[in-house]
Amino acid sequence: MTPIHIQEVKNIVRTGRVLTDESDLFSYSFDGSFGTYLPDAVIQTNNVEELAALVKLANEEKIPVYPRGQSTSLSGGPLPVKGGMVIDLSVMDDLLEIDEEDLVAIVSPGVLTADIHKATEQKGLLYPPDPSSSHVSTIGGNMAENSGGPRGLKYGVTKDYVIGLEVITPQGDVIQTGGRTVKNVTGYDLTKLIVGSEGTLGIITKAILRLIPKPPASETIMAVFDSLVDAGSAISKILSSGILPSKMELMDQASIMAVENYEPLGLPIEAEALILIELDGHPLAVKDEAKQAADLCRLMGARDIRIPKNEEEKAEIWKARKLVSPAIVRIKPTKISEDATVPRSQIPEMCKRLQEIRDKYNIHLVVFGHAGDGNLHPNIICDKNDKEEMKRVEQAVAEIFTAAVEIGGTLSGEHGIGVMKAPFMEMELGEAGLDMMKRIKEAWDPNDIMNPGKIFPKPGQKLELIEWNEA
Amino acid sequence: MTPIHIQEVKNIVRTGRVLTDESDLFSYSFDGSFGTYLPDAVIQTNNVEELAALVKLANEEKIPVYPRGQSTSLSGGPLPVKGGMVIDLSVMDDLLEIDEEDLVAIVSPGVLTADIHKATEQKGLLYPPDPSSSHVSTIGGNMAENSGGPRGLKYGVTKDYVIGLEVITPQGDVIQTGGRTVKNVTGYDLTKLIVGSEGTLGIITKAILRLIPKPPASETIMAVFDSLVDAGSAISKILSSGILPSKMELMDQASIMAVENYEPLGLPIEAEALILIELDGHPLAVKDEAKQAADLCRLMGARDIRIPKNEEEKAEIWKARKLVSPAIVRIKPTKISEDATVPRSQIPEMCKRLQEIRDKYNIHLVVFGHAGDGNLHPNIICDKNDKEEMKRVEQAVAEIFTAAVEIGGTLSGEHGIGVMKAPFMEMELGEAGLDMMKRIKEAWDPNDIMNPGKIFPKPGQKLELIEWNEA
Repeated sequence: MTPIHIQEVKNIVRTGRVLTDESDLFSYSFDGSFGTYLPDAVIQTNNVEELAALVKLANEEKIPVYPRGQSTSLSGGPLPVKGGMVIDLSVMDDLLEIDEEDLVAIVSPGVLTADIHKATEQKGLLYPPDPSSSHVSTIGGNMAENSGGPRGLKYGVTKDYVIGLEVITPQGDVIQTGGRTVKNVTGYDLTKLIVGSEGTLGIITKAILRLIPKPPASETIMAVFDSLVDAGSAISKILSSGILPSKMELMDQASIMAVENYEPLGLPIEAEALILIELDGHPLAVKDEAKQAADLCRLMGARDIRIPKNEEEKAEIWKARKLVSPAIVRIKPTKISEDATVPRSQIPEMCKRLQEIRDKYNIHLVVFGHAGDGNLHPNIICDKNDKEEMKRVEQAVAEIFTAAVEIGGTLSGEHGIGVMKAPFMEMELGEAGLDMMKRIKEAWDPNDIMNPGKIFPKPGQKLELIEWNEA
Repeated sequence: MTPIHIQEVKNIVRTGRVLTDESDLFSYSFDGSFGTYLPDAVIQTNNVEELAALVKLANEEKIPVYPRGQSTSLSGGPLPVKGGMVIDLSVMDDLLEIDEEDLVAIVSPGVLTADIHKATEQKGLLYPPDPSSSHVSTIGGNMAENSGGPRGLKYGVTKDYVIGLEVITPQGDVIQTGGRTVKNVTGYDLTKLIVGSEGTLGIITKAILRLIPKPPASETIMAVFDSLVDAGSAISKILSSGILPSKMELMDQASIMAVENYEPLGLPIEAEALILIELDGHPLAVKDEAKQAADLCRLMGARDIRIPKNEEEKAEIWKARKLVSPAIVRIKPTKISEDATVPRSQIPEMCKRLQEIRDKYNIHLVVFGHAGDGNLHPNIICDKNDKEEMKRVEQAVAEIFTAAVEIGGTLSGEHGIGVMKAPFMEMELGEAGLDMMKRIKEAWDPNDIMNPGKIFPKPGQKLELIEWNEA
């Protein structure tokens, strides 16, 4: 951006702030993933007209626009890889309205997802998507990336709950998509196209979220297995028995050890796998289903079943799962967090392949995640300053993606493509499939100003973890 | 199409049939809606390569392509309004595979939706979407229109269960979208863009459907009300009490009368409204929830609650709802079936406006539908040969759409836009909103060959029920 551009931006932004100091710009140069890129300016305003005028200017002058929430992205979603302006939407956090009769929440993009959970649960309602970052991530970022979380198994992901949007198009027009009705087939589903498009098709400035009645009760089970394959079989068995748990999470031995070293919770460190199950619904139903699920786990080889006796014990079990991420970064400073997702039946096969990749490249690999829906989180723990190690990590990551696609899975279940996975898009989608996506991007954003450099690979682009770090 | 085109089509279709006799063409000239349009040729083949070659030819020669299932569409989805070729996909009915471990069904587009229900339920699984036409409509048509049905309230609509597609693009390329995983954020969600795009973006030749465990029990309640507004309030009350029924259907007095005249079932013909509720889930839970729901209905003014004692009585109650459509066409030969959908809280207001419109234009209006999700079905019973009446119907239909949009609703909840609602698109979406949809269509189908004449209005296009009939 030229000094004239900066001045034009300042003229537009009358109710907010325009940051251009280098220390400010640095704060907006990274996210929860990898790499550091300085923007030219950061804009904070919650005025939609000003935002629309900024996008109009950007479109005319071909200035990159990077919308951003709390930047917890694990795929580089908000990274300003081509400079330009970062739009800090975390300041647009003033609207969180619950309509109990229509069973919807109307929210602005900067609202924290956990605050939506709190506000809805106070009214006996539930907004189901629960990414592990929900206490720090914004609903806007959740929508851009189509975040999932453990409850995806029973309740689906963010996209399944967004029924209406206010969006600034890449031309600076403000459009409304969908509305307050759960059923809507009036033309193309722009709502579900924009949710999960990683900020490349526009800026979400308001959303209507579908809510459901909060299930009145829940039960939790922890099942301990000596074999990862048995754990996988137990998951299939439970699902085909007519029980649909609200969560079904897997922790492998490396994650159990990491958590136990981080904070001793009495986890069985010699076990090869843990499954954590939550059932929710009517109190009588969940009691009975918990018993059935426990029996099925035993039948499939679980050597121990722990059923918490009270809310404290229940919270303790879920704490173990939540601590995996903070625990593993204690081992080494850099965490490459992937979310290659496979058909449910392929979980044992994927686990096997992950172990092979770990041994082949001698990397520190931890596997946990939402096993009930095939959404595993292989995390590689490494040190980005160790170039030799990072070279091995690069190769291992590429093989993880290839393995997932080979067995019928996908590059990303909930983190998004961003920058790191772009080089692998054609492998999964084929040339024609990727081309149909590009056509939408080009038709909506002919000047490529909205979050440029994401999703779509440059010709010949390869995964390079080392160069990114130095960029 | 020229005779040369017909010959080229015949050269391509080696494994199927090409119909060009006028009597055959006539069979493909109408659907469940309004108007008659002769195609130039009808093609039946279940060979994807042949279909792709046909689309390539059509794209080169600018021949309209009209994909078609069992043509139960209520919005004109498959009508060949510009001639050209009709692709009869009802013959592509050979694939219906259930994978119990991955909890998916793989289907070809010509399979009847009811057959998917049967096959999945035999394995203890459920494919939830249940449009009332499911025993005669194909899954391909359901996907094109994003069909709903009563279970939409709890389980969502067709789109919520389609996770992967094989599609022939308007250029004749075969692409795969999504896959066998429930979570997938690899690029734009082409699956959910294509489902509900009414055949304007490509031909679906295979689909992967997500299944859920079949709920082990269900309970049914019929609540009788002397006031439509009280019935509406009872619906809201139940939903905000923490109960999420699998179905919550409304029948107004006109529909009760029509059914009772058609087949006496002992319905309370003096009641102003009936609510039919189905609860599904764990046996203990549904028993208790049914009791709670019945109590809430009484509290909100229901003068009678009927709880069926056995499966036969249960079937009888749902038969009443299913008979509404066949019953009302007994009154007059032409049925204009709408599905304007409003936010749940606006159901009483919409009912009031519908009664005003009925009186203003002196039309025979019957209202029933999926009240739990705001998806009403105002049906106008008329005689298409009575031009004076049809003029009044035309005005009434336009006012119904306007009323729905004015109170925050949408033109269509589950039937699609097709031809009849196209003139009202800009009213709901605004110029910029409609333009963003058009850009996708133009980017994917620059020669406008895929189901042309649908969704997007021609400049100045108005609703004309009389001329359509004569076309």
